[in-house]
Amino acid sequence: MPLYKQFADQLAASIRAGVLRPGERIASVRIASQQHKVSVTTVVRAYELLESQGIIESQPQSGYFVRAQAETVAMPAAKTSREDHPAWQESTEVDVSRLVLATLRTIQQDGTVPLGSPYPNPALFPSHRLAQYAGKIARHASQSSVFDDLPPGHPELLRQIARRYLENGLKVAPEEIVITVGATEAINLCLQAVAKPGDTIAVETPTFYAMLHAIERLGMRALEIPTDPERGMDVGALEECLKTQAVAACMVMPNFQNPLGFQMPDSEKERLVRLAEQHQMPLIENAVYSELYYGNAHPSSLKNYDRDGLVLHCSSFSKSLTSAYRIGWAMPGRYRDQVEKLKFLNTLATPTAPQRAIAEYLTQGGYERHLRRVRRAFAQQRELMRHFVLRFFPEGTRVSAPEGGYVLWVELPPQVDAMELYRRSLALGITVAPGRIFAATNRYSHFIRLNYSYDWSREIEQALKLMGKLVQELAD
Amino acid sequence: MPLYKQFADQLAASIRAGVLRPGERIASVRIASQQHKVSVTTVVRAYELLESQGIIESQPQSGYFVRAQAETVAMPAAKTSREDHPAWQESTEVDVSRLVLATLRTIQQDGTVPLGSPYPNPALFPSHRLAQYAGKIARHASQSSVFDDLPPGHPELLRQIARRYLENGLKVAPEEIVITVGATEAINLCLQAVAKPGDTIAVETPTFYAMLHAIERLGMRALEIPTDPERGMDVGALEECLKTQAVAACMVMPNFQNPLGFQMPDSEKERLVRLAEQHQMPLIENAVYSELYYGNAHPSSLKNYDRDGLVLHCSSFSKSLTSAYRIGWAMPGRYRDQVEKLKFLNTLATPTAPQRAIAEYLTQGGYERHLRRVRRAFAQQRELMRHFVLRFFPEGTRVSAPEGGYVLWVELPPQVDAMELYRRSLALGITVAPGRIFAATNRYSHFIRLNYSYDWSREIEQALKLMGKLVQELAD
Repeated sequence: MPLYKQFADQLAASIRAGVLRPGERIASVRIASQQHKVSVTTVVRAYELLESQGIIESQPQSGYFVRAQAETVAMPAAKTSREDHPAWQESTEVDVSRLVLATLRTIQQDGTVPLGSPYPNPALFPSHRLAQYAGKIARHASQSSVFDDLPPGHPELLRQIARRYLENGLKVAPEEIVITVGATEAINLCLQAVAKPGDTIAVETPTFYAMLHAIERLGMRALEIPTDPERGMDVGALEECLKTQAVAACMVMPNFQNPLGFQMPDSEKERLVRLAEQHQMPLIENAVYSELYYGNAHPSSLKNYDRDGLVLHCSSFSKSLTSAYRIGWAMPGRYRDQVEKLKFLNTLATPTAPQRAIAEYLTQGGYERHLRRVRRAFAQQRELMRHFVLRFFPEGTRVSAPEGGYVLWVELPPQVDAMELYRRSLALGITVAPGRIFAATNRYSHFIRLNYSYDWSREIEQALKLMGKLVQELAD
Repeated sequence: MPLYKQFADQLAASIRAGVLRPGERIASVRIASQQHKVSVTTVVRAYELLESQGIIESQPQSGYFVRAQAETVAMPAAKTSREDHPAWQESTEVDVSRLVLATLRTIQQDGTVPLGSPYPNPALFPSHRLAQYAGKIARHASQSSVFDDLPPGHPELLRQIARRYLENGLKVAPEEIVITVGATEAINLCLQAVAKPGDTIAVETPTFYAMLHAIERLGMRALEIPTDPERGMDVGALEECLKTQAVAACMVMPNFQNPLGFQMPDSEKERLVRLAEQHQMPLIENAVYSELYYGNAHPSSLKNYDRDGLVLHCSSFSKSLTSAYRIGWAMPGRYRDQVEKLKFLNTLATPTAPQRAIAEYLTQGGYERHLRRVRRAFAQQRELMRHFVLRFFPEGTRVSAPEGGYVLWVELPPQVDAMELYRRSLALGITVAPGRIFAATNRYSHFIRLNYSYDWSREIEQALKLMGKLVQELAD
């Protein structure tokens, strides 16, 4: 490990241990260099690393300070759910989509504070460059027709996506990929390829509602597996279930899960894939946040451990490049042909211009630089959001510690009705995602999810302050 | 009726009656004016009308001639199917999509003659203007996100579609419409909204394969109702079926059905809707060709007769404006909310830029002018295609007489295997749609569908000549 990283780690450990407290000024570069007998360059690089991780912050003319660190709190609904929910091994019918659509509509309204949004701040995207490419393509491709991009999709985009995986250590051939209308369609097609109506599908709890939507749409049943806010799905619990009941497939989001934000450890990812092999159970992996890591390296995918082609990997550009183009894809392993056929049946083809604009962007370069900027912004805003929630919300509030992505999972005092908070906040022009959209059963009635992808502003701070008051009222 | 139309009708009747034969020269404008005691203007307008209908043609320096008129031939598979197929009342599982995708792929290949294409010649589309709008929108809408066009879709496009229906005599409110990824998605969503896996769905036979795809994808069963090549689905036969079995929905294409080309008479449309009311059976109407009529007036839709909201009307711009943008819509009557929800579950949202580009095109005007040009071209090319098929193909070949759209249904001598013709044609660089993709059962083994939307050329003529030889070989 390079010296600057060792030095950064030591400093981070001191902060975690409480030796250095939030708001405290830390040694200047010159002094730290003398104290620790390391070069100025080493200190500068270490401080930059800690800053990118949101652990310290620089203030102009005054030096570096320890950032407000929220306590990393385990979500009891996950950690203790085997005990709290004696019936957790029973699968349930799913119907959450109406509430989700209503929630998204609140965000569509002009002037609302978009804390309930599932999408990243579009201002962070290289929209101008993409638009230039799209405009150029539109002007030149006047005779393009649907045939240009029959499934599996536009050849150059397939190639660029495969190249990107290679850069991140996953060997993928363009032929393994099928382009879809967002990850939403990819997940739907993959699920339909491996399971049929009435089947039971294992999911995390809480889980991203797009997973529940796919299950709902296909008339399947959800089996909610206890999920640790730091390590992800409890693979042991899943194993236990598989002994007693038929599970047609398992849907997971191993990296920066929405809403919990965890990154599943590599060992757990591998364990899950081996369990799936043993039971020949397909794994549908939702990887839409994988590019938005705060750590030093791109996280691995379940696909990295897949020997039998059982992993159906789904992703999109909606969270990392543009949400307006609706371009996603599936890498369905051994189910590739079925998924391609279902794509054809579902929407025939994906529009060609957005595919070509993104392919052009990836060809021209700059994606990695853009992502670095976004990751840094999200890591910093995570700390601010955690700090202000803990400051403005009443005692008993706990927050997650996401390791990537841009959403915070907030547990309110147990007597608070998050649906009522959702309604009262909306009356004040503030949107929020209520916990109940993240489960087939109404488990998370006192949880909310907050989006921290927007540039920090007085407006956001004010919104959190107002919400804090509402939570206090509802807790009293 | 204006005088010139009366005059044109008389002349057309003489031609039909064989008084004037194909290839014969007809009276010059001056002589006809004297003979019939009508003005020169009246004769000119009558001749122009007959020319636009493909009944006569002008040859430079030589005057007007009667065009080669193919005999309007009833398709026996439709007319006699109640007798020919004693088991027609049994529903069947569906699996045609692989063959359809393979067929479409043959068209994708460079340099093939696209007689097998289901799409109109893109050169006829106002692609340049659309591309200009798309480019402008792309450059200015740099911050657009998926929220802009959550279901039901982009508000201005919804308004423009409703306006277009109003112009054609159908009162529609923008709120009744849900934008989709092509008519393919619209049909899928509508079918899923009204039926469940295992249900029986009544369809025309032959039917457009997109209908069969939807049934296949959702695991339903197809009940193929005898269909008259001039009047459409045999409503009496459907009525008979409804007496003895449960039919969850009925899917039809009342105007310029693909592949037969008929326009269902208004009386039959109304009869079908009344039958549906009586049984409270939803009707899924595919109207993608309705704008491409050769007659004088826009044809009515089933929706015009719908009093109970039982008609789920589906359409798109893919056949009339651009196939590359993949913009379609559903007007699902009383099932609107279910369809909107399923749209959200299936693909979340339709990409915004193509919706906005089309909305802009419709706002700026010129759609009707464009359509008139396209209709005229298709009407003329229909006659050429019919003429040359009958000229080059062996005796026993019969062709349909489409009243709109751009496809011809060709019955080959019964011993000809259309799949073998498909393969041998492809080896010569000619694509063709084999009859078996138009039915769940293999009824149309000696039928093919030909696309006549492309500008007539020596290449097309040569392709038909070569195919004629292949058919002769296969018939011997």
